[in-house]
Amino acid sequence: MKDQIKDITSRDVDFAKWYTDVVKKADLVDYSNVKGSMIIRPYGYAIWEKMVAVLDKMFKETGHENVQMPMFIPESLLNIEKEHVEGFAPEVAWVTHGGSEKLEERMCVRPTSETLFCEHYKKIIKSYRDLPKLYNQWCTIVRWEKTTRPFLRSREILWQEGHTMHATKEEAIAETKKMFKIYEKFQKEYLALPVITGRKTEKEKFAGAEDTYTIEAMMYDGVALQNGTSHYFGTHFAEAFGIQFLDKDNKLKTPYQTSWGCTTRMIGGIIMTHSDDRGLVLPPKIAPVEVIIIPIGNDEKVDNCIDLIKEKLKNADITFKVDNTDKTPGFKFAEAEVKGYPIRIEVGKRDLENNKITFVRRDTLDKIEFDISNIENISNDIKTLLNNIQNEMYDKALKRRNSMLYEAKTMDEFTYIANNKPGFIKINWCGNTDCEDKIKETTGLKSRCILEEEVADGNCPVCGKTGIHKVYFGKQY
Amino acid sequence: MKDQIKDITSRDVDFAKWYTDVVKKADLVDYSNVKGSMIIRPYGYAIWEKMVAVLDKMFKETGHENVQMPMFIPESLLNIEKEHVEGFAPEVAWVTHGGSEKLEERMCVRPTSETLFCEHYKKIIKSYRDLPKLYNQWCTIVRWEKTTRPFLRSREILWQEGHTMHATKEEAIAETKKMFKIYEKFQKEYLALPVITGRKTEKEKFAGAEDTYTIEAMMYDGVALQNGTSHYFGTHFAEAFGIQFLDKDNKLKTPYQTSWGCTTRMIGGIIMTHSDDRGLVLPPKIAPVEVIIIPIGNDEKVDNCIDLIKEKLKNADITFKVDNTDKTPGFKFAEAEVKGYPIRIEVGKRDLENNKITFVRRDTLDKIEFDISNIENISNDIKTLLNNIQNEMYDKALKRRNSMLYEAKTMDEFTYIANNKPGFIKINWCGNTDCEDKIKETTGLKSRCILEEEVADGNCPVCGKTGIHKVYFGKQY
Repeated sequence: MKDQIKDITSRDVDFAKWYTDVVKKADLVDYSNVKGSMIIRPYGYAIWEKMVAVLDKMFKETGHENVQMPMFIPESLLNIEKEHVEGFAPEVAWVTHGGSEKLEERMCVRPTSETLFCEHYKKIIKSYRDLPKLYNQWCTIVRWEKTTRPFLRSREILWQEGHTMHATKEEAIAETKKMFKIYEKFQKEYLALPVITGRKTEKEKFAGAEDTYTIEAMMYDGVALQNGTSHYFGTHFAEAFGIQFLDKDNKLKTPYQTSWGCTTRMIGGIIMTHSDDRGLVLPPKIAPVEVIIIPIGNDEKVDNCIDLIKEKLKNADITFKVDNTDKTPGFKFAEAEVKGYPIRIEVGKRDLENNKITFVRRDTLDKIEFDISNIENISNDIKTLLNNIQNEMYDKALKRRNSMLYEAKTMDEFTYIANNKPGFIKINWCGNTDCEDKIKETTGLKSRCILEEEVADGNCPVCGKTGIHKVYFGKQY
Repeated sequence: MKDQIKDITSRDVDFAKWYTDVVKKADLVDYSNVKGSMIIRPYGYAIWEKMVAVLDKMFKETGHENVQMPMFIPESLLNIEKEHVEGFAPEVAWVTHGGSEKLEERMCVRPTSETLFCEHYKKIIKSYRDLPKLYNQWCTIVRWEKTTRPFLRSREILWQEGHTMHATKEEAIAETKKMFKIYEKFQKEYLALPVITGRKTEKEKFAGAEDTYTIEAMMYDGVALQNGTSHYFGTHFAEAFGIQFLDKDNKLKTPYQTSWGCTTRMIGGIIMTHSDDRGLVLPPKIAPVEVIIIPIGNDEKVDNCIDLIKEKLKNADITFKVDNTDKTPGFKFAEAEVKGYPIRIEVGKRDLENNKITFVRRDTLDKIEFDISNIENISNDIKTLLNNIQNEMYDKALKRRNSMLYEAKTMDEFTYIANNKPGFIKINWCGNTDCEDKIKETTGLKSRCILEEEVADGNCPVCGKTGIHKVYFGKQY
């Protein structure tokens, strides 16, 4: 098990290798013989289940309902989207045969389900009484990626896709913003991820959308991870599909549409923000197991103490596991660190003689002595500690993220930072795509998002014209 | 909305048409343009979500963990199963192209995932310490069915598949039985479905299994619905895939395997057992909305009373909905009946003047007056009523089911019942597949299961030899 840690490449030596080492060693995924597809192992899937539970509750509390659409899309249906979205050329998996028969029309496995939702909405939306429709779907989608990385880019992606229809533009825009605020809240409060949020530029938005809002997290290496998007579609698709409703004023109108999604990629975001050279570090609110209890030595007193701790934690709804395997304590400690359980409780015979047990925080590796004469309060202490870990993980990530935010007034300054410092660079942007293109060509950085709550206060470093937006640029996964 | 009821074909006139009418009118599914695939609409999906939540908890409480395998299976991998299971010829959907490129090897969308689990187990099972492995997967599978019916037979099926590995035969057999008992408990206690359980005959078991245990429900029309199966595989697949572990005695051994699954077909089972000519009837424990509150007339007192009821129900965790649309009360009542909400609360101005509101049970359509001076107790009364509905729905279904169970001592008797009475027929069976075949040829009935807790007490009606098992026969969906 010590080897298990030694096997993890140092994060500062080779970040990409470190990432895949952590993912593998923490038993989150396994590679399968199906190229480009991964197996999400129980521990990795349990993290996703926790995410799904929280998000699903947030969606339902805001009036959304879950549905399940077919997983196949006939080519002609997919083409409707293609015709109406410039540059839309999905790399998809094509089903050509059913059983031993060739299909009359080939079908793809859904890369996203706009077209299926639109077809269904066309059938079920007739009147203003049928609006809004606030549908969401949890499912797997397939995109035929050439190069893949666990959670970040794979052929099969677990995600949710919200597709909503509204009677008015204002309502649809409010929905678009509401959902991206829900993503922001979820990522901050549950994943302990500081995120920068805003609107995508014309160049970077989803081609079929009027506006795309994005949640941009910055990884340990300064590279951006787009962790969720919320699109306002206007009436674009609704027109293409001929969706109309009879409004209160007895006029036929076209409804306004939104779409929003997030994926298992968020698991990658947690890893690349919080984890370290010893393995995974999980925010308590998303950890499948909050506390790992490790006995040191075979002893009746140790067993009794652990039984008591278990009872207290259970009554307080704190999730825990006891490592009763026949491995050595050292092995168990190392494994607990690789797996990223937020708190480890060590219960040893010698410590017990001094009325002590030890809590070890995974995030800081700090040790905290706990007086067992105070055992009645153990759940409260653990809860407080879990809460502190959650908050301090966020603060730490925020501090680090902020230390990698830059602002450039000139193109020279921009280029220097881009070439020498990982992170995001803010500029006053004139709003012209040419300037965005030039930055991309020169430095490889793409615009992350337009900061909606900041006002431009200078000229565009590329063209020198008056800036109209503050925009962050950065590399991306 | 009255028309909505009129549109439902009578159950006794055309059972098949009645079924699809209910499924459509209750907004459970919609047909999609993707042939053979259905859209599970929010109300239908909410029923599935309730089922998943209960079953998933039962699985986890018995030590199972969820994983997510790839959705594709390369042809060569699928062929390993084919080679080792006689008669295994899955009608599957074949993916032949990724993007614009032809795949070197075509892949199918999983019709079931034995092969993927076996491949993974081969990699991760090395020692007795790695056993048991108790994995489950919630996912969608695809089978290329020619004729389809909502929930009962479709190309895409939402299901769970458990795949477990054990060090000993005894443990694997115990697991097989444990899981089929969990299905039985779930279907009785939550779905209010009386089920007959037992072992499949050699002829009817899954070809790759040593033993298949089945849960057989009987629908309103006397036809069987196989609502879940649990297989004991022995070492059959483990050997084919070369899975071995080093046991405590330092010897290499092959582990013993089980597999168990149930699907959205259970929703079909609920409909065909409990529903009636007015639409859906849902057992309260699986109903997404337990109570529908319907105001009669626009009146402040009505509104105030409803606010009070809402508060009481909310505090008691009773799920409810208020129908505040501008439809007439008659419309709303009819719609509430089509949707199968277990209890309807009618709040009308005139009734309120007499201190009354009315509860209407969906299952019996009985009306119960409730004295609003007793409002503090409304949640308790509703809870008791929900509980009674749940139990009485089971009792009613059981009584009806029992009235369609027959026993035949001679082949003449068997044939007469088979031709004249819908239901299941029990016989003393000699254990010979020829006799089973003969019954099938003569009457179209297949064996449902061997009753493990009953002892044969006579001769086989087909061949006249000594019976060794009691076996039920019946038609099936």
